[in-house]
Amino acid sequence: MARVYSVYGLETLPLIKEGTDLAKLIVEASEKEKVGIDDGDILVVGHKIVSKAEGRVIQTSKIKPRKKAVELAFKHGRTPGFVEGILREAREILSVWDQTFIVKDWRGWVCVNAGIDISNVSRGDSFLMLPENPDASADSIRKGIQNLTGKSVGVVITDTYSRPLRRGMVDFTVGLAGVKVFEDYRGKHDLFGKILKSKFVARADELAAAAELVLGQGDEGVPVAVVKGLASLLSDDHSGSNELIMDREEDMYSGVV
Amino acid sequence: MARVYSVYGLETLPLIKEGTDLAKLIVEASEKEKVGIDDGDILVVGHKIVSKAEGRVIQTSKIKPRKKAVELAFKHGRTPGFVEGILREAREILSVWDQTFIVKDWRGWVCVNAGIDISNVSRGDSFLMLPENPDASADSIRKGIQNLTGKSVGVVITDTYSRPLRRGMVDFTVGLAGVKVFEDYRGKHDLFGKILKSKFVARADELAAAAELVLGQGDEGVPVAVVKGLASLLSDDHSGSNELIMDREEDMYSGVV
Repeated sequence: MARVYSVYGLETLPLIKEGTDLAKLIVEASEKEKVGIDDGDILVVGHKIVSKAEGRVIQTSKIKPRKKAVELAFKHGRTPGFVEGILREAREILSVWDQTFIVKDWRGWVCVNAGIDISNVSRGDSFLMLPENPDASADSIRKGIQNLTGKSVGVVITDTYSRPLRRGMVDFTVGLAGVKVFEDYRGKHDLFGKILKSKFVARADELAAAAELVLGQGDEGVPVAVVKGLASLLSDDHSGSNELIMDREEDMYSGVV
Repeated sequence: MARVYSVYGLETLPLIKEGTDLAKLIVEASEKEKVGIDDGDILVVGHKIVSKAEGRVIQTSKIKPRKKAVELAFKHGRTPGFVEGILREAREILSVWDQTFIVKDWRGWVCVNAGIDISNVSRGDSFLMLPENPDASADSIRKGIQNLTGKSVGVVITDTYSRPLRRGMVDFTVGLAGVKVFEDYRGKHDLFGKILKSKFVARADELAAAAELVLGQGDEGVPVAVVKGLASLLSDDHSGSNELIMDREEDMYSGVV
């Protein structure tokens, strides 16, 4: 009979400050909201609260932009502090579109403005960077939740991305712990016994998108989703989110976009 | 308290033949599996059963490949019938990667092999094309379900895509009826009263990804998901899936991939 999973968006987490124990707040909110944490649950966490808890905030008035940041800021109509933040996170600037910098960051993600975000930060001159090592952040939250509850869970950390070829944004995975990155159907058989040659599904990104349907957008403040019913996606194979990074040489859309 | 939605994968649909009334089969399976259809439900349907019901099957032994199909087939190691099918669906071949054709189809989608699929088709020499007009197909299923149940529902039709920049496939929306394509947060305020300038979320693609976590992969045969708890995504504004198509001129990743 029908298989089912459910996605709960937690609404009672307080505003997050540097040094906050996220695992504790997540467990408390899940209890308060009668969601609870069970074995096999997957916690999907928007990166902003992780960045805040880790103090990945920069106040533009307090950083000194390098010469190149000042030049690029002048050329593209951004503030020098914002561009300095991008340069600190970027391995390479690939393109500038309107006032948007498309970069490869030093983690390897191709992303807009190096993942730097100015929304939902309290101070007007502040912005948030991605967690320094999002997989390590996910693992820390995972272990914290397991210590507090005794339950075995997976954790995914997400960010919102614009995409090539398709309009509109979706959430993608930028960090994970204890969760499968992919489901590999290559070599398996279809309904009629034929070999499926190429099916290779990005489970982690599907989880990110599924969670975003309840996660905090705009002023809503729902930073964490608890996914129940997909325990088969848990894994202890120490997969890393960097497996999602497609190098240009292996990208079949090279030259198409 | 926590908001929640649930995704049910229907497992008892029979094999689909040309002319099948999909709406009827979906309602029957949802009743048999005690899922039911409620007001505000969103039905997410893998395109293959829609294509089969609409007879969008080509037997390669019965179609006559044009000269160009024979040439391309020889050059890239595919069968002439398969390439003929691609040419019938394609507006433009953008690239050939290994043995894979990246095309813009005549609907406007940039996709692999023009969306033509050889898995889960019973005859070895057959392949499936996308429904001719997936939005119309979705609307027909929607009206059929509404007529049978008296409930107001939305319908999304999906296909599995490889993506630029990120490894692994996810499901995207290729047709819809009665469902919002986007959620537009531009101009709204964040938690601290700041204007969110650029948030524009592709709800339809998030629904497709969320459903794929239960939908049929490989030999599993789960072709339909019933999403309950996201009635706020229903809409009667006659949005079309073509709104998801990003033209090259507006694509900030142009030249980056």
